[in-house]
Amino acid sequence: MERKGNLMTHRPDIKVFDATLRDGGLVNNFYFTDDFVKALYLTNLRAGVDYMEFGYKASKDIFDPAKFGPAKFCDEEWLRSVVGSNETGMKISVMADVGRCNLQRDLLPKSESVIDMVRIATYINTMPAAIEMIEYAHSLGYETTCNIMAISKTNSADVDEALEMLAASNVDGVYLVDSYGSLFPEQIQGLTKQYLEHMEKAGKFVGMHAHNNQQLAFANTVESCSMGASFLDATVGSMGRGAGNCAMELLLGFLKNPKYNLTPVLSFYGQYILPLKEEGLKWGYDIPYLLTGKLNLHPSSAINFTKEDRRDYAEFYNELFDME
Amino acid sequence: MERKGNLMTHRPDIKVFDATLRDGGLVNNFYFTDDFVKALYLTNLRAGVDYMEFGYKASKDIFDPAKFGPAKFCDEEWLRSVVGSNETGMKISVMADVGRCNLQRDLLPKSESVIDMVRIATYINTMPAAIEMIEYAHSLGYETTCNIMAISKTNSADVDEALEMLAASNVDGVYLVDSYGSLFPEQIQGLTKQYLEHMEKAGKFVGMHAHNNQQLAFANTVESCSMGASFLDATVGSMGRGAGNCAMELLLGFLKNPKYNLTPVLSFYGQYILPLKEEGLKWGYDIPYLLTGKLNLHPSSAINFTKEDRRDYAEFYNELFDME
Repeated sequence: MERKGNLMTHRPDIKVFDATLRDGGLVNNFYFTDDFVKALYLTNLRAGVDYMEFGYKASKDIFDPAKFGPAKFCDEEWLRSVVGSNETGMKISVMADVGRCNLQRDLLPKSESVIDMVRIATYINTMPAAIEMIEYAHSLGYETTCNIMAISKTNSADVDEALEMLAASNVDGVYLVDSYGSLFPEQIQGLTKQYLEHMEKAGKFVGMHAHNNQQLAFANTVESCSMGASFLDATVGSMGRGAGNCAMELLLGFLKNPKYNLTPVLSFYGQYILPLKEEGLKWGYDIPYLLTGKLNLHPSSAINFTKEDRRDYAEFYNELFDME
Repeated sequence: MERKGNLMTHRPDIKVFDATLRDGGLVNNFYFTDDFVKALYLTNLRAGVDYMEFGYKASKDIFDPAKFGPAKFCDEEWLRSVVGSNETGMKISVMADVGRCNLQRDLLPKSESVIDMVRIATYINTMPAAIEMIEYAHSLGYETTCNIMAISKTNSADVDEALEMLAASNVDGVYLVDSYGSLFPEQIQGLTKQYLEHMEKAGKFVGMHAHNNQQLAFANTVESCSMGASFLDATVGSMGRGAGNCAMELLLGFLKNPKYNLTPVLSFYGQYILPLKEEGLKWGYDIPYLLTGKLNLHPSSAINFTKEDRRDYAEFYNELFDME
C-alpha cells in the first residue's frame, strides 16, 4: 500500500473533524458557555472545518444533568440555539458511548434533527452492541462511524474480526483511536493499512483520533492521513482528556487544501482557549501523560497526579509499573 | 534504503546526546548554577547518556564574559570543576560556531582537556570555514561533527555538495539540523537517506537535531533514527531555543537499549527544570513557534512575541507573511 498524496498537493477526500467540545468537554464536565460554543461554531465555519462534534448524546438516567454542561447531552433545542437549522456546508456530529446512552429515546429521526452524524464509541469487546446502535442510527437517517477505543490494548486478530463485522454493517466509516497515546507512527502506519484493507472494499472510510501523550498526536494523524485515512480529528489548542488531541492549528497549518483557513482558529485560541488555561483548566502534554502513554495505560492516574500538583515524577513512574 | 531495527529491538550504534546546557543555554544566556550543571552531569551518567554537551566554545573577544554564564565559553577549569577528569564512560562535547570562536587560542590539545568532541555548527554557505575548524580540532585529537544548520532553507544540490566535502574530510559525523522546526517526518526520511548515502561509504555517522515548533521534534528524531541516524540530540524538558528540542524523557522512554534509564531524568526534571519554568524562563511548543515553523522562518520573531506576552496570534500570523 503506497502513501496517498504528497506534501505539496491535497486530497479532496480529507475531512477535518473538530472534536473540541466533545473531547475538551472531558476536561471541564462540558461546562462551555453559550458564547464559547457559538464562537467555535463560527470559527469552524470560517476555517472550512467539515464536521463539528457538539458533544455526547449521554443518557440523563445515567448522568445527572445538574452535574454536566449541555454538551454532555446535546439536546436538540440546545443545538438549535447555537446553529439554528445549520444552513451551512459544515456537518454536525454527536458521540454516543456504548452502554451510556438511550438512542431509542433520545435520538430523533434525522428529518427532525440538525445532527448529521452519530459516532458510536466502543471498546472492542462490545462490538455487537455498537453495531446495534450503528444500525439504529442509520435507520433513522444519520451518517455513522464506529470509534474503536484503546486499540493499543487489543490484539490484531480481534481487530480483524471487529473490522469484518463493521465492513458487513451499514456504518459509513471506522476510526482508529489511540486512546492512551501510546502508538508510534510506524504502528499507526500498520494499523491504518489494516483498517483500510477491510474498509476500502466495503466502500467505507477510515478516520484517525489521536492523543498527545508522547507528543505524537499530530505526527500520528499526518502518518495515518498519508496512508489513506480521510477523517482527521483535531481540537483547538489540543483541548481534550489528559494530554489532549491533535491540535487543530497544527492540522490546518499542514493541510494544503485552500478551503482550510488557519486564521480564525488562531483568533479563537487567543480569545477563548487561552483564558480556559488561565482559569486553571489543565490538559496537554506533560510528563505524567508521557509515562502512561509509554506504558500503554489509561491516563486516569496521570490526570490525578496533575490535579494534585505532584512533582515526584520518578516515584509516579515507579507506581505505574504496578498497574501494567 | 530499509528501516534499521524495529520497535522491539535496539541498535547498538545509537548514541544519546544531551544538549540541555548548550541549546537550553540559549534560553537563559547560559546562566546555569553549578548545582544545576553538576546534577545534570550525574543524571546523565545514571541515565546512560552517551555524550553530554556543556555549551559553546565561544570567543571572549566577541561575547562579553560578564553577560553570559560559563557554559557559553566552556573554559577547561570550569569543566573540570564539574567533571574532575571525567573518569566515566560518558563523553563530553562542546559546540563551536563558525565565525564566533577562536579555536587556535581556546582549544587545548586533547591530551590536556576533558573535552572529547567538538561539534562545528555552520550554515551551508560557510562550509569551507567549517571544514578548516573540523580539521584543526581533529588535528588536536578530538572527535568532530559538522552540524549543518537551517537545512530546510537549503537546496538539495547544495546539500549534496556540502556532504561530499564532508565525506572527504576527517569529520566523524554529520548532523541533520532542523533549526526552524519546519520539517515533516516524510522529509526527514528523505534527508536522512541523502545524508547516509554520502556518509556511510566514508565510514561516518549521521546525527539528528530537531526543534519542536510543530510538535514533531520527537517524531522526527524517531524517524531519522529508524532510517539509520545514530547520534540523537535531546534536552531535558525540551529546554532549548524557542520551541525547544526533542525531549530527553521522550527519547529515553522510546529507546529499548537496557543501558538507558529514564528515572534519573524524571527526578532531574522535577527538581531542576520545572523550577526554571516557574521562575519565568520560557521555551517549548506554543502557537507562535508553530507559525514560524510552518512558514520555515527563524524563530526570533516568535521568541519576541512570546516575551511580550502578546496573544494576537492571527495578527502575528499575518505579520509573518511579510517575512517569508
